[in-house]
Amino acid sequence: MGVADTDLANAIRALSMDAVEAANSGHPGMPMGMADVATVLFTRYLKFDPTEPKWPDRDRFVLSAGHGSMLIYALLHLTGYAAPTIDDVRNFRQIGSPCAGHPENFELPGVECTTGPLGQGLAMAVGMAAAERHLNAVFGDTVVDHRTWVIAGDGCLMEGINHEAVGLAGTLGLGRLNVLWDDNRITIDGAVALSSSEDIPVRYRASGWHVAECDGHDFADIDRALAEAAADPRPSLVQCRTIIGKGAPNKQGTSKTHGSPLGKDEVAAARAALGWTHAPFEIPGDIAAAWRRYGERGAETRAAWESRLAAHVDGAEFSRRMAGDVELEDATGWAFATWDEVPTSVATRKASEFALTGLTAAMPELIGGSADLTGSNFTKTDSLKTFSASDYAGRYINYGIREFGMAAAMNGMALHGGVIPFGGTFLVFSDYARPAIRLSALQRARVVYVMTHDSIGVGEDGPTHQPIEHVMSLRMIPGLDVYRPCDAVETAECWALALARKDGPGLLALSRQNLPLLREGGDMLSARGAYRLRAATADRRVVLIATGSEVAIAVEAADRLEGQGIGADVVSMPCWSRFDAQDAGYRADVLPADTLKVSVEAGTTLGWERYTGDGGLRIGIDGFGASGPSGALYTHFGLTAEAIADKIIAKLQS
Amino acid sequence: MGVADTDLANAIRALSMDAVEAANSGHPGMPMGMADVATVLFTRYLKFDPTEPKWPDRDRFVLSAGHGSMLIYALLHLTGYAAPTIDDVRNFRQIGSPCAGHPENFELPGVECTTGPLGQGLAMAVGMAAAERHLNAVFGDTVVDHRTWVIAGDGCLMEGINHEAVGLAGTLGLGRLNVLWDDNRITIDGAVALSSSEDIPVRYRASGWHVAECDGHDFADIDRALAEAAADPRPSLVQCRTIIGKGAPNKQGTSKTHGSPLGKDEVAAARAALGWTHAPFEIPGDIAAAWRRYGERGAETRAAWESRLAAHVDGAEFSRRMAGDVELEDATGWAFATWDEVPTSVATRKASEFALTGLTAAMPELIGGSADLTGSNFTKTDSLKTFSASDYAGRYINYGIREFGMAAAMNGMALHGGVIPFGGTFLVFSDYARPAIRLSALQRARVVYVMTHDSIGVGEDGPTHQPIEHVMSLRMIPGLDVYRPCDAVETAECWALALARKDGPGLLALSRQNLPLLREGGDMLSARGAYRLRAATADRRVVLIATGSEVAIAVEAADRLEGQGIGADVVSMPCWSRFDAQDAGYRADVLPADTLKVSVEAGTTLGWERYTGDGGLRIGIDGFGASGPSGALYTHFGLTAEAIADKIIAKLQS
Repeated sequence: MGVADTDLANAIRALSMDAVEAANSGHPGMPMGMADVATVLFTRYLKFDPTEPKWPDRDRFVLSAGHGSMLIYALLHLTGYAAPTIDDVRNFRQIGSPCAGHPENFELPGVECTTGPLGQGLAMAVGMAAAERHLNAVFGDTVVDHRTWVIAGDGCLMEGINHEAVGLAGTLGLGRLNVLWDDNRITIDGAVALSSSEDIPVRYRASGWHVAECDGHDFADIDRALAEAAADPRPSLVQCRTIIGKGAPNKQGTSKTHGSPLGKDEVAAARAALGWTHAPFEIPGDIAAAWRRYGERGAETRAAWESRLAAHVDGAEFSRRMAGDVELEDATGWAFATWDEVPTSVATRKASEFALTGLTAAMPELIGGSADLTGSNFTKTDSLKTFSASDYAGRYINYGIREFGMAAAMNGMALHGGVIPFGGTFLVFSDYARPAIRLSALQRARVVYVMTHDSIGVGEDGPTHQPIEHVMSLRMIPGLDVYRPCDAVETAECWALALARKDGPGLLALSRQNLPLLREGGDMLSARGAYRLRAATADRRVVLIATGSEVAIAVEAADRLEGQGIGADVVSMPCWSRFDAQDAGYRADVLPADTLKVSVEAGTTLGWERYTGDGGLRIGIDGFGASGPSGALYTHFGLTAEAIADKIIAKLQS
Repeated sequence: MGVADTDLANAIRALSMDAVEAANSGHPGMPMGMADVATVLFTRYLKFDPTEPKWPDRDRFVLSAGHGSMLIYALLHLTGYAAPTIDDVRNFRQIGSPCAGHPENFELPGVECTTGPLGQGLAMAVGMAAAERHLNAVFGDTVVDHRTWVIAGDGCLMEGINHEAVGLAGTLGLGRLNVLWDDNRITIDGAVALSSSEDIPVRYRASGWHVAECDGHDFADIDRALAEAAADPRPSLVQCRTIIGKGAPNKQGTSKTHGSPLGKDEVAAARAALGWTHAPFEIPGDIAAAWRRYGERGAETRAAWESRLAAHVDGAEFSRRMAGDVELEDATGWAFATWDEVPTSVATRKASEFALTGLTAAMPELIGGSADLTGSNFTKTDSLKTFSASDYAGRYINYGIREFGMAAAMNGMALHGGVIPFGGTFLVFSDYARPAIRLSALQRARVVYVMTHDSIGVGEDGPTHQPIEHVMSLRMIPGLDVYRPCDAVETAECWALALARKDGPGLLALSRQNLPLLREGGDMLSARGAYRLRAATADRRVVLIATGSEVAIAVEAADRLEGQGIGADVVSMPCWSRFDAQDAGYRADVLPADTLKVSVEAGTTLGWERYTGDGGLRIGIDGFGASGPSGALYTHFGLTAEAIADKIIAKLQS
């Protein structure tokens, strides 16, 4: 468009240098090194329309190397997105600017996901590419036909999750996924060779990927490599040989450009070397106009797409799925649809399967899976056929033994939209997926984690497989709703609540062992997070607060207390975050001040002081578990009605 | 020795079937499938002496596929270890039996590490092999000359951590590491091909490994492949083509044998197919004797080694290192050795470097490293030269961008003995390493985690890089001592405390930002976990309890309160677990009942109820952080002396 590629790329370099310099912190090396590749991608390949950043059929662009955030801020600004403005860019890394240190999906349309925790951007892109293929299989090429592009650095490729993401994408044959690897041979500590001797292309090919390579500073060569990647039916890795900090004459090619401002002198030297004579944050009119014109090219494509969607026989359904609204009342109805078949004594993991049977039948947007524990997690229903390279219409993903990769892929699917992902593993392995669970919450992504085998009830597998600190430490992740239902009714309720929440994740902690039914359904009591399951008969002196598999034990303990004339309420508390959001009056009614409050949960007691107060009792497990039959373990750890009642009586008498 | 290999292997199969059947739970498929390979390993390659399970120069054997625990229990029993006895095996998976569901290093000598969480066994073996090479470089072939052998399944190879472990071992050239891959093409959900299309040998070769392969049921072929692996100077993967559940005629080769008892009929069929006519748990005399003789072969080798050690010029130093005793007084002295150089205002990550300077100079057993954040974690001192394939005498490992792999390798080093590992990353990435941190605690391994950038003090990098829930959720891991020192004195003290604890891990949460010196050293107050840093001048009405970077802010807030005539103590609480272990009198003195207790910590407030009580105030951050300069963020989140004092005054007046 009349302006040289070099000038377009140097605009990115200049904004990046200037913003980092103004903030006096940041990462200039990556944006300067990848400016040429990004220029080719955004001007010749990426399908996008800055005036409609959420256009469903846009290409997804993921900056997996999120520390190079100025690259995407520069690109969004230059191509004409409403934000960031040049003032936003000037305020890079300041409170209130959408140009945060790392790209945050909730700050800027055009930022598809939050990146920075290395490796996860690429792994989320796998989920985006999977969602695209699924929706394509359902709705066809006329409305779903886009690619997912990733820029990743050596850190993203060295992290363990990369192995999981590469394996998943290769097995699923996600050819619409193209990863541009910033191969600059530099990490923070120095040369990549200090810590790695891997032949990365060989590894990718071993998992069924196509690998192209190019000189990352030769526009024609980049163009050729991207064309190859776009044409190849396999997922592609494009090895872009680059120089980190390219353009900074004295620091480029070294780790000095990675995570610190170049400094005034080096910025001046870079300006001279690049022939960039303009003031900080100033983009000359012709270059700005050229970038803007590239940004405008998508409008026509999008308009054509809008017409096709309007004419599509299932256009309304497509739009419904992309909107992602789920009414709580509907979800509750579906979760209870198979209620007549549910046994009165059933593990909550099995109750979850009954709920899912109704939900997956009614909600075509649900895509399930498990990290190779399908038969234990009970995550696959008859409605869910396998999603595979030979059938993208399927709705069940065999994630393999890849808990972290599964969680990250689910984040990508949720952020792509049009699908609602859920996936299972054992609760103890939530630790493997924890960095992605945190990102679900931070990104406000609707992902539902099905975490079964949620306590010492695991039994014989022993301490490595028995969660102790997990439920409580998951409750601490801001924005994550942790549900631990006590029976089949609460399980169905919690499923409905998790699905009806559009702006964040839910995690269900489910029992391996059978649990009795404790109440009738129909009143959605779980929505309040905690409620009085049973009121005292005798004068109330005790309130037992329990979750999950320990609620039935608490009820039995209350029976024993009542037998001795001690009135005892039982409160079931399936979801702390929902209870904490209730008004003070409700909370005080459920947990009255003038009683002995006793928590019962087969896990760490740290944290339960919040509800039991100073004078309360906390019954749980503060060490590791043991190997033995589940019932024997409950006795061993003092989690029986008898032991609990005895402790309470002793406390009342003390 | 007169008994056929097949009979030796079938003894393993029989014990495995019988024990799983008796427990009515467990995993027969792996031990039956790998019985032949294990027989060759234990009778012809593994260097061990059952009468001295902790002999320092023994080969290390890691059953990474820990669910197949009956394989190692059978081998230890058959080769003549004092435990497990046949009664222990009969009580497989029962409370009190050392034959737990998964192998636990603290239950049985001969079990080198706790396995079960997939992928971690192999990754720990990388650390063991690194420790061996280091001690070999220091003490020579005459006292250190052993191998590390691993049995791993497809799960171990599919997990992300495998990529990190393979990359690390390849880069470090750990040729003494040999991994026997149980290539049975089956996972829990069915065929491996359901979730993976990877050419695994190609991937290993891409990282500098040697790959051999064999028919895992042909003893001569197994022998040939293990000989190749032992001879090759590179780390070796031996692809053992096996049939899962080999010997169970109707179920072998399917996932049905993986995680459930075979059932009475199939056990009978297997006995018939194997020609094993003996009663459950009964090993015929000739086979038992043959196994026992294989177990006895190591005694002579060990005796020769003992003689060499006795004659070795540094034999006493070698034994000292292997014993691993560290006196607290010594460690404290070393941690303060460079005290004169420490500035009065210094980040605790930098104070940690000063402490490490003295410690690493005095303690040759310390081996440090960082997951590619050396210049940020300040983990490398002048005493630490790089550990690499060309210099195993070095004591600093460039772990690369592999937080989980680093943590697991450190576990392996600590369990190997003779070295004390420490390693650094950002605290927020403790999530990546969390499964291995849990295993440090469960295995009672002395690993010291150096986790810097421990709060919103990270500043501009924003919410992905700012810990919120991390410190508290780490405190919940049983047996992990979490230290959050407030200044240079506490940092040195906490380092000494962590190193002097032989039976478990410590984690230091350290600030990015500078912090003032708050007291004189010399009294090791951190040992009590919490102490009164400053006593109230006016009548005491308030006790501020703070940790790390917030202690100085609490002191300032106390000044403001005192200025208004409100007496306020300040308690510094660097380590909760140590404080909880103090007697009730001390705890009541530090946190007296008749005061308003206020916690101040730049992280989640959930959990602080333990010390503030019902009527207390908890000041912290319960949502995600933000991108901006550190000081601006502290103001934004209300963590200033002024804001805190105002809240306290409002509370006192309410």
